[in-house]
Amino acid sequence: MFESAELGHKIDKDVWDREVPALREALLDAQFDLTTAKFPVIILVAGVDGAGKSETVNTLNEWMDPRHIQTHGLAEPSDEELERPYMWRYWRLLPPQGRMGIFDGSWYTWPILERANGRIKTSDLDQDMTRVARFEQMLIHEGALVLKFWMHLGKGEQKKRLKSLEKDPKTRWRVTPRDWKHFEMYDTFRQVAERALRSTSTADAPWIVVEATDPHYQRLTVGKILLERLRARLDHPAPVVPALPLHPPPPSLDGVDILKALDLSKRIDDKKEYEDELLTLQGKLNLLTRHRNFRKHSVVMAFEGVDAAGKGGSIRRITQALDARHYQIHPIAAPTEEERAQPYLWRFWRHLPRRGKVAIFDRSWYGRVLVERVEGFCSEADWQRAYSEINEFEDQLVRSRTIVLKFWLSISQEEQLRRFQERQDTPFKRFKLGEEDWRNREKWPAYEAAICDMLDRTSTEIAPWTLVESEDKHYGRIKILRTLVQRLEEEM
Amino acid sequence: MFESAELGHKIDKDVWDREVPALREALLDAQFDLTTAKFPVIILVAGVDGAGKSETVNTLNEWMDPRHIQTHGLAEPSDEELERPYMWRYWRLLPPQGRMGIFDGSWYTWPILERANGRIKTSDLDQDMTRVARFEQMLIHEGALVLKFWMHLGKGEQKKRLKSLEKDPKTRWRVTPRDWKHFEMYDTFRQVAERALRSTSTADAPWIVVEATDPHYQRLTVGKILLERLRARLDHPAPVVPALPLHPPPPSLDGVDILKALDLSKRIDDKKEYEDELLTLQGKLNLLTRHRNFRKHSVVMAFEGVDAAGKGGSIRRITQALDARHYQIHPIAAPTEEERAQPYLWRFWRHLPRRGKVAIFDRSWYGRVLVERVEGFCSEADWQRAYSEINEFEDQLVRSRTIVLKFWLSISQEEQLRRFQERQDTPFKRFKLGEEDWRNREKWPAYEAAICDMLDRTSTEIAPWTLVESEDKHYGRIKILRTLVQRLEEEM
Repeated sequence: MFESAELGHKIDKDVWDREVPALREALLDAQFDLTTAKFPVIILVAGVDGAGKSETVNTLNEWMDPRHIQTHGLAEPSDEELERPYMWRYWRLLPPQGRMGIFDGSWYTWPILERANGRIKTSDLDQDMTRVARFEQMLIHEGALVLKFWMHLGKGEQKKRLKSLEKDPKTRWRVTPRDWKHFEMYDTFRQVAERALRSTSTADAPWIVVEATDPHYQRLTVGKILLERLRARLDHPAPVVPALPLHPPPPSLDGVDILKALDLSKRIDDKKEYEDELLTLQGKLNLLTRHRNFRKHSVVMAFEGVDAAGKGGSIRRITQALDARHYQIHPIAAPTEEERAQPYLWRFWRHLPRRGKVAIFDRSWYGRVLVERVEGFCSEADWQRAYSEINEFEDQLVRSRTIVLKFWLSISQEEQLRRFQERQDTPFKRFKLGEEDWRNREKWPAYEAAICDMLDRTSTEIAPWTLVESEDKHYGRIKILRTLVQRLEEEM
Repeated sequence: MFESAELGHKIDKDVWDREVPALREALLDAQFDLTTAKFPVIILVAGVDGAGKSETVNTLNEWMDPRHIQTHGLAEPSDEELERPYMWRYWRLLPPQGRMGIFDGSWYTWPILERANGRIKTSDLDQDMTRVARFEQMLIHEGALVLKFWMHLGKGEQKKRLKSLEKDPKTRWRVTPRDWKHFEMYDTFRQVAERALRSTSTADAPWIVVEATDPHYQRLTVGKILLERLRARLDHPAPVVPALPLHPPPPSLDGVDILKALDLSKRIDDKKEYEDELLTLQGKLNLLTRHRNFRKHSVVMAFEGVDAAGKGGSIRRITQALDARHYQIHPIAAPTEEERAQPYLWRFWRHLPRRGKVAIFDRSWYGRVLVERVEGFCSEADWQRAYSEINEFEDQLVRSRTIVLKFWLSISQEEQLRRFQERQDTPFKRFKLGEEDWRNREKWPAYEAAICDMLDRTSTEIAPWTLVESEDKHYGRIKILRTLVQRLEEEM
């Protein structure tokens, strides 16, 4: 992968002098057009030490309007970052639509360094890279223009460069003992980097290897490629996928599906029995959240179900047992303006809890494959890819010691109607019922198909769905609490 | 202050049983109305140890819909919080309009504890409380409903309570050695708390002292007061101050003002001289930002000036000397939806830099007393109070070792016209010019008055304005760079 970047590429000074002014102007122009475009630009600048990464980043900031660029240097993660999944710190920094984000050091840096230092295995690196590739795939599907530059310097060139930096008193500070240590590891590093790049050089986000021997050559190359890709994207925006008519999968031949197979007649009729069980489970839950091991985990709960399925009431039975300082409920309604300018999972990433804390989502990231699918708020291609993106998201949660619980609250269409009517007749509950709720009822079959698909594709071993027969509210609440208590007991 | 809360207040169980259901329903009702109201509710729950603070917080969450409540327990600040002003962590947690935020432990907690432990002086406490009172004043002016509950327990009662908690195995965990240590300090703590409460019990946000001897009495009292205040605010919203006609202060008798007194004829005509000086200053700046002491500070710069005054160009001459990973430019345009749901300073607080980082604001919090004043985007009362709020904001920055620089770039009306015409004639610069720019020119005198007021009221010793004669761009840029370099040299 690096051979073409060891040919001693360079350009003459007059080429530089001639080309840079025009390039700058064109870049500024493109950057201006970007401000009103509906996509972000994400630029990674990676590579070997001493290969002018930060100089290139600075040049880009100098050539363009730095007011519309967000530049991030990779530093040690903060404690707030350490308590979340590895990718959380990058999600925080993603540029919104119309902006450019430059990452000097990125999601590649740690895995490559860890492998080069022998702290993780090759198979770990491969897994990390698979995840990274999926993340970038998601960014691209969400509209981002992703450019990945790898600054390369042959071994001999690197040595020469470090030496010359060291000789000049003005630049000596830039060469640290760590740089020489890295230099000794050059061959290992190169090999690891090559492996990482190979598996993440995808059609949509290929690595662009740039020789760093001649800084003028290097920067002009980066600038021209950036201009070309950005211009191409601005002038020929990705075709908007038209809203397709829905093709719900055909009902199974025997008419049985996972929702219909639920026994909604399950009930707890004895009020005393219900209340005793409720109190016992709430007591257990309270004790579990005060267990010392609880502080080593985070908990994320997602509640989904048709309108009036009893999500709010179930959530309240859980929070009654918790200390209000330790949980946060996130009711998911229409995204805010800042959320709309980001990939759809961003609004959930931003609310991920620290260790010892519980985040309860009243409706969740599954909206993508439920309401957004059925109502046509996103394209079929968008919700089709969401299944694996969601599985990936939950995988990252679980790997960072987050306990993930997902509840589907199921009621029959008749029971929903009964509850709607009850709401309409109770002044106090009337506000809970909107016109939309009545409209949604008409699409019941389409929703049912979407729900079955969702359960089939996202109920995983690490983050299984719990189907809750909620026709009887008492039965449903007890089942949810019991599931939660059991999960926590297993994890502690 | 605490006498009425040492009378052994209590209620009978049947009062509780009778009143709670109605209270809950009314609270839920009010909470629902709040979701569409244009103000947030901020509830502080403070008090002595063992006085049922967290229990009260939990009760409120149980009585109301916890999905619309954000509850925050005070914990040790994170490293990201430690690198910002003390109030940053609370600004992050402010509830937006339509939401309720409950703080169990608040901006009062540290100062009171620090004073009770003798780590700060009484005069420090007084200063902290003055600042806190100003902060709350600002919240209230911005529309917030602020309720401050102090949970009180007489000394004898507190001892009894701790003992009885210790006796029950189920509650023993809740009594820590720290609680007994605090108990020994009861009298000191009481005295300090009394002093803190006294100076912060303002007309708009008085402390409500609640006796905690009987939990039922305590919770019902809190719930009823919350309902009453919330209902009153919902039913009789604060009168919206009508947009007043502007009353610019009369021009000074001799026609001299601080802007007119500027000598705009200052120039650097020699291009070579300009370039040499520019490079020298940029070199110095670069070295300063690599000084080891630089990492102990943050830098915040605000650029203000009429359209086409040269803000962008000046900022660029600074960033050319910086490492792109260490600064972030924030161009201030219309606030986002999330920003509009918060006090106007919130959007600046959220961008405060960590140590060793530079935040450059291209237009700033001064918009409140410039464009918002002149265009009538806020009421006269709003911009009149902004001067002291801004001074307070900058004071907090400086006290947390942030170096604050504010530049006013001044050009004549004729020079502005010349630059507008130049922009119109240069295809590449045309986008910089909008209709609004032409419109703004008509209000030049009103802007001039606003600028003079701003300079008079916010140029402080800790955060002085630098007036920049920018009629000649070269002269202006050099002055800005030189000011910055001198400031950094002084601070290191």
